[in-house]
Amino acid sequence: MRRVAVLLVVVMAVAGFVAFTASASGHADQKAAPYVTQIPAGYRDWTLVSVAHEEGNLNSLGAVLGNDVAIKAYREKTLPYPDGTIIAALHYKNTPSAENDKVFGRDQSFVAGPPTNIQFMVKDSVKYAATGGWGFGHFSPDGKPADAAFMSPCFPCHEKVKNTDLVFTHYAP
Amino acid sequence: MRRVAVLLVVVMAVAGFVAFTASASGHADQKAAPYVTQIPAGYRDWTLVSVAHEEGNLNSLGAVLGNDVAIKAYREKTLPYPDGTIIAALHYKNTPSAENDKVFGRDQSFVAGPPTNIQFMVKDSVKYAATGGWGFGHFSPDGKPADAAFMSPCFPCHEKVKNTDLVFTHYAP
Repeated sequence: MRRVAVLLVVVMAVAGFVAFTASASGHADQKAAPYVTQIPAGYRDWTLVSVAHEEGNLNSLGAVLGNDVAIKAYREKTLPYPDGTIIAALHYKNTPSAENDKVFGRDQSFVAGPPTNIQFMVKDSVKYAATGGWGFGHFSPDGKPADAAFMSPCFPCHEKVKNTDLVFTHYAP
Repeated sequence: MRRVAVLLVVVMAVAGFVAFTASASGHADQKAAPYVTQIPAGYRDWTLVSVAHEEGNLNSLGAVLGNDVAIKAYREKTLPYPDGTIIAALHYKNTPSAENDKVFGRDQSFVAGPPTNIQFMVKDSVKYAATGGWGFGHFSPDGKPADAAFMSPCFPCHEKVKNTDLVFTHYAP
């Protein structure tokens, strides 16, 4: 979910399983933990969870949205998140706004520039049992999903925030 | 709408009207152009328009949301925005996330901290005729509206972006 995921090294959750399938088929990544390969319908109309900004190489502005199940769980502080929860992170390039800065009279305003990616966390405790009950998804702006190798760091990174059921983003009032 | 508004000097749209009411009643601000004094119901569930970040003294992270009329107009590029349009800007303190930075291994992650204010633009070409058809609103996190003096810079600032019907925020895909 978090763009931090893409920076981290691959650590498979079920290493034994991967080792087995690798030796059996020679195509380990085809048997890797399942992840989200289709963009959930209607996500752009979901409710705001919060906003986020990453400096450094990512240099991003992001909005995190949730479907109805997610928002209800966030607002009622339900943990773990119930099956059916979907959280979306829409990332854009953090881009100076010349138009706004002109009105301000100084350089301080940043807006959403071109989209960089859309990420999802889909809770399905059966389908995604190998990754904490969460399916992770990452799509380029043209809707193309990332491959298994790209997705494999998601779970080990999110696993570091077990106290919030692997979810980094907190609800903003 | 934009937090930039609060930084600018008062320039009333109908200076003659204000001068008249000031001399007649001694309470100019009671007769100032109308602005939004009640928080529109349900705004927190509206659809995302875009995200924004201000550096400098404001040091804010913001989400801009729109009601159904607003979102339809944004997506269909309808200008001017029709009556019934409401745009909300939710502002939070741009706050470093120690939790995220720990996972990243470096200081780069900023999240929505405490809310600082909520601002609205309400389109009603009759009620708000004196301010370009837009009613501006600014509320502290406890829901208290700003007073007329505080609100008076909104219109002259927004008037600088006439080509987008006084709306600064563009729709993010």
